[in-house]
Amino acid sequence: VITTLLTDFGSADTYVGQVKGSILALAPSTVVVDLTHAVPPQDVFAGAYLLWTAVEAFPPGSIHVAVVDPGVGSARRALAVLSKRGDLLVGPDNGLLMPAAQRLGGVERAVSLTESRFWRPGASTTFHGRDIFGPVAGHLARGVPLSDLGPGVTDLVDLRIPEPNGLDGEVIHVDTYGNLVTNLRAAHLPQAFMVRVADRLAASAPFYAAVAPGELIALIGSSGLLEISVRDGSAAEATGARRGTPVSLQPQPG
Amino acid sequence: VITTLLTDFGSADTYVGQVKGSILALAPSTVVVDLTHAVPPQDVFAGAYLLWTAVEAFPPGSIHVAVVDPGVGSARRALAVLSKRGDLLVGPDNGLLMPAAQRLGGVERAVSLTESRFWRPGASTTFHGRDIFGPVAGHLARGVPLSDLGPGVTDLVDLRIPEPNGLDGEVIHVDTYGNLVTNLRAAHLPQAFMVRVADRLAASAPFYAAVAPGELIALIGSSGLLEISVRDGSAAEATGARRGTPVSLQPQPG
Amino acid sequence: VITTLLTDFGSADTYVGQVKGSILALAPSTVVVDLTHAVPPQDVFAGAYLLWTAVEAFPPGSIHVAVVDPGVGSARRALAVLSKRGDLLVGPDNGLLMPAAQRLGGVERAVSLTESRFWRPGASTTFHGRDIFGPVAGHLARGVPLSDLGPGVTDLVDLRIPEPNGLDGEVIHVDTYGNLVTNLRAAHLPQAFMVRVADRLAASAPFYAAVAPGELIALIGSSGLLEISVRDGSAAEATGARRGTPVSLQPQPG
Repeated sequence: VITTLLTDFGSADTYVGQVKGSILALAPSTVVVDLTHAVPPQDVFAGAYLLWTAVEAFPPGSIHVAVVDPGVGSARRALAVLSKRGDLLVGPDNGLLMPAAQRLGGVERAVSLTESRFWRPGASTTFHGRDIFGPVAGHLARGVPLSDLGPGVTDLVDLRIPEPNGLDGEVIHVDTYGNLVTNLRAAHLPQAFMVRVADRLAASAPFYAAVAPGELIALIGSSGLLEISVRDGSAAEATGARRGTPVSLQPQPG
Repeated sequence: VITTLLTDFGSADTYVGQVKGSILALAPSTVVVDLTHAVPPQDVFAGAYLLWTAVEAFPPGSIHVAVVDPGVGSARRALAVLSKRGDLLVGPDNGLLMPAAQRLGGVERAVSLTESRFWRPGASTTFHGRDIFGPVAGHLARGVPLSDLGPGVTDLVDLRIPEPNGLDGEVIHVDTYGNLVTNLRAAHLPQAFMVRVADRLAASAPFYAAVAPGELIALIGSSGLLEISVRDGSAAEATGARRGTPVSLQPQPG
Repeated sequence: VITTLLTDFGSADTYVGQVKGSILALAPSTVVVDLTHAVPPQDVFAGAYLLWTAVEAFPPGSIHVAVVDPGVGSARRALAVLSKRGDLLVGPDNGLLMPAAQRLGGVERAVSLTESRFWRPGASTTFHGRDIFGPVAGHLARGVPLSDLGPGVTDLVDLRIPEPNGLDGEVIHVDTYGNLVTNLRAAHLPQAFMVRVADRLAASAPFYAAVAPGELIALIGSSGLLEISVRDGSAAEATGARRGTPVSLQPQPG
């Protein structure tokens, strides 16, 4: 079974390595895959979006551990969630897991991680990745049933990627290349259109090399969302747009 | 068996990948786990501290390869160390492995890596990670006995994490969030206390969310050491403190 | 079998994780190893050089997936290449794979990846790493024959690491430490020599610790190429040199 990891731990310290140790100590044959550890610190929305982009690429039955957890140590619950597709998601109850769970068919069942015999002995109040989420994922990878980990819960903290309003959407993520990912999907698009963002207009194009370097274009990206890009450049720099910047589709005569 | 890697090689080049190739070529079924490769270049103390933070999260019998090695190619010895707990540590004889070995129960036995038949043929003078430490770890993972690798040695270069003097300690590490990790342990702490660092006072708190954003707090971190943090911020920025900055406990009337 | 990955995807997003998902979904027992994901965006030469540095450290029969692909979605071909040593290289037909293929003995056979039944269903025009190269690598790891993936091709886009002209070479890469890697090989070197780069002179030395901190030295690096370094410092900063800067050997009286 594959176990993925997504955190805001960065890569300068050994925090990610320690989480992997806690998983592999229990489930030596699970294959651990990093999704990213560069979620901006404490940015639950960015973590939720990034987890959403990645989970579908993994086979059903995979385990996804996500830790962006400003409330660690407080009363916020710790969760394991079974998706309708059969995947498991493990992390804090702050909305982080919810867009990914929706993408995997929705929440089939969720439990609150209260059974401390599945935690690391002497769990800390600051590092639940190593002390609760990692060990729980290790136990799940070994086949421990979800229901052993704690009581079922249904009132999960929700978090949604905002829906567009007709032809008006917004930037929901700026990726490492400076591409602006919007919440507009292929199904929202008129036959022919331009995209307005921060007073700039982008024409649609089928792929980057279809336009000249430096030109602003709109295309459907790898997650099925409309993205605004600059060939061989950064659309974020070119437009000044960032998360939350409005984006509107302008239909063109075909 | 798990083989971990900790280096100052960064992630922009393929050095870490080449070390993994040299391990996996010999021991295809070992699971290689990155601890970190962002140790500041040549900073043996930082590498030793980071290795110390991580090793206990892995099961006994794991192999830990660490390379922060300003003396590569010179007369400094190359080591494999067996800990009393049964783990193996592989790296240069410059103190890098010592705090981790202590955390794993102390040094049971150590050998100087002189048997070149366990190295990469034509080993370089600049890349012992790929040419000596990696291959030796691969052979150990396959079950080659420690004593085959070279003669026993006892006069290892030592390196200690400094001990506090009563209630007076110091910052020994600044992590990626700007948390100040000190050398004060839970056992050193009075019942109620404040912590003075760089003319600022931090009150103790059980977890981050117990205080308001921006507030300076002191809590026992994931390694069992007192850490000074700013909720949703950087204590290093807030205080100007860095490695070596004095920290003192001020007992408070209970 | 080992499958390595080299891309310009960075580590802030989940792109690399998605490629791994697409490989592991098809070939769960392949061991995936990161070479680097910090190739400068779209820099095919840098990617080709970095791939060249790494492949020899892996056992024959390994699969190397490389994606630095400014032409993604355009008419540029997608390739799988069998080296004479028996390794497989998968990536775009833009020269990226060629220096590595040469290092592995040369191209034995190459195919154009046109058989879409070996791709992800509904492959995008922007993310061939996840949708074509990853799945093809997964199928190869499972034993699908190269010839099933598409027709044989011979007119591959070439890319060469430039050859030196006698004693005159150039910087071909600046690594993470600021070391200047040149295209001069051990075989090119006079018995005794100095190296001139950007109006500075570097004396040859057998290893870093042989000179004082801050001193400029030249030595044969881990890839068999002459490198110019500053002990405990950055030769790139000290000299201002970068990729393409001329470097000349000056023989000295023995």
